[in-house]
Amino acid sequence: MNKTRVLTGITTTGTPHLGNYVGAIKPAIAASQDPNVQSFYFLADLHALIKCQDPKRVQESRLEIAATWLALGLDTDNAIFYRQSDIPEIPELTWMLSCVCAKGLMNRAHAYKAAVADNETAGSPDPDKGITMGLFGYPVLMAADILMFNAHKVPVGRDQIQHIEMARDIGGRFNHLYKGQFFTQPEAVVDDKVEVLNGLDGRKMSKSYNNTIPLFVSEKKLQKLVRKIKTNSLEPGEPKDPDTCTLFQIYSAFASAEDTADLRREYENGIGWGVAKDRVFEYLNAHLREPRERYQALMEDPGHIEQVLAKGAERARAEAAPFMDRLREAAGLGRFV
Amino acid sequence: MNKTRVLTGITTTGTPHLGNYVGAIKPAIAASQDPNVQSFYFLADLHALIKCQDPKRVQESRLEIAATWLALGLDTDNAIFYRQSDIPEIPELTWMLSCVCAKGLMNRAHAYKAAVADNETAGSPDPDKGITMGLFGYPVLMAADILMFNAHKVPVGRDQIQHIEMARDIGGRFNHLYKGQFFTQPEAVVDDKVEVLNGLDGRKMSKSYNNTIPLFVSEKKLQKLVRKIKTNSLEPGEPKDPDTCTLFQIYSAFASAEDTADLRREYENGIGWGVAKDRVFEYLNAHLREPRERYQALMEDPGHIEQVLAKGAERARAEAAPFMDRLREAAGLGRFV
Repeated sequence: MNKTRVLTGITTTGTPHLGNYVGAIKPAIAASQDPNVQSFYFLADLHALIKCQDPKRVQESRLEIAATWLALGLDTDNAIFYRQSDIPEIPELTWMLSCVCAKGLMNRAHAYKAAVADNETAGSPDPDKGITMGLFGYPVLMAADILMFNAHKVPVGRDQIQHIEMARDIGGRFNHLYKGQFFTQPEAVVDDKVEVLNGLDGRKMSKSYNNTIPLFVSEKKLQKLVRKIKTNSLEPGEPKDPDTCTLFQIYSAFASAEDTADLRREYENGIGWGVAKDRVFEYLNAHLREPRERYQALMEDPGHIEQVLAKGAERARAEAAPFMDRLREAAGLGRFV
Repeated sequence: MNKTRVLTGITTTGTPHLGNYVGAIKPAIAASQDPNVQSFYFLADLHALIKCQDPKRVQESRLEIAATWLALGLDTDNAIFYRQSDIPEIPELTWMLSCVCAKGLMNRAHAYKAAVADNETAGSPDPDKGITMGLFGYPVLMAADILMFNAHKVPVGRDQIQHIEMARDIGGRFNHLYKGQFFTQPEAVVDDKVEVLNGLDGRKMSKSYNNTIPLFVSEKKLQKLVRKIKTNSLEPGEPKDPDTCTLFQIYSAFASAEDTADLRREYENGIGWGVAKDRVFEYLNAHLREPRERYQALMEDPGHIEQVLAKGAERARAEAAPFMDRLREAAGLGRFV
């Protein structure tokens, strides 16, 4: 077991879009092919409950995300791919970690502080208005996600570095209190080169801006969405700047260097927006056609996805269950034998 | 299933003493014999981790408490007797409830507020000093303990009424959000007639005062402890007041009405303290001899206790597991089928 253990959770509240693919899914699937790495990918559906209390949305999102990763070629013999809620050891560990985690640490969590600041700005007399214990305590759940599998590396955005530091803090505290090297210290891996794709309106593509292009919509819908990408009012024949253009940015995230250079020249030569959009659509569509077919087949066979996830849960629990036995024992909760 | 469901947790940080027996164990065992009641008794060992980070103490206490209840005649074919940490559905439910529980509710919990007040009195700049997320959030765990089995009644002391109200609040919120009658509203049962026994020094018998008489010490040790019970300096022959006397109070908690009346007369007749103590010792010892023998045999056979608790966990999980499936389904965490 000398492989580097890399762990990534995907919160199951949205439908995967082009931005997720380029920024997260594609690099994660590529990384999981490294023979020196043991990847853990999980549907973070316990986290989803914090943000989304629409059961239909959570359920759909879980299925869509699982189908997406599988359609895009995640090798589940290699990566351990599981659903968080299938691992009862995770909430168990969450409780054990709660008992060694200072409340003060959570008081300082960015997400909580931002919610309090919003309440203060809105003039609420209760700074904790609308804040649940789930939102307040989720860094402890996240620590359990990471520490349960002794992940070495956790790829995150800058805004998530604090959570990894908290996991280190909590794990270190447990090691100290119960006198053992139970938990490895995880490391945040921030890749500033990760591509951030823009959405229909030119802002970062994000569910919260409602400006996304879902990965696996129908051909017709994809064409319609690409046509909606905001461009400027330059006429055909006028040279256009590819470097400030969302359409170009999306194209280049998918196209080869050669094809990208080619479209760049066309921009300089004054390609019309309609023609450019059709070209981007054709390219995307050609790229996505095969995985889309696999995606649709998977979505029609949820039983198969269930099986794949059950296998992942079994592999994850083969580690988690004996490890939790050891942790319980260490805390005085062992069996009487 | 029309039985009234009564649930009691026993925090596993101490060694059962005479005060526990009189105030809690004896009435609980008696109540469990009511054919209209389904009792749930559990070793609250996840709660123990909040207060006690000495694994040896937690482990011993769990064993001692289990052996005590069994030695005193708990009928485990009738009552469901389990160890909290054997029910993984409880921390799972705790997380789900966290996501519907307002943080503000926990801000107002007595135990948390008392800890903050202690910090303020001590002049600490951090009001949350030394407070863990376990201490802050344990009313949510307690709500999960209760709601998991849809307990109707929870016998508690006055200081615990708030926790039952919180469980009602949290369960009601879940029912409302997920549109179903998942959880019954539990009721606190406060019995003001519960006998509170005094300890060696005349204050309430309590582990925290270090003034307890453990239930199952050796005969010799029991005699020694009874002799240490604080009395006044009245000489033999001088009449004594039974109603302000710890020794008399302990005796009367065990003795028949007739025997109690008899000792009362002896007090009036000026019984000497040495004689009175021997008489109380003899009475207690006669009363405790048989269960003590059973207790010692049980303590020497932890494997048997493990079996009894495994049976209890199995019965508890036969309810908890399908119920959690239903709750997961309701929140959008169902299986893909």
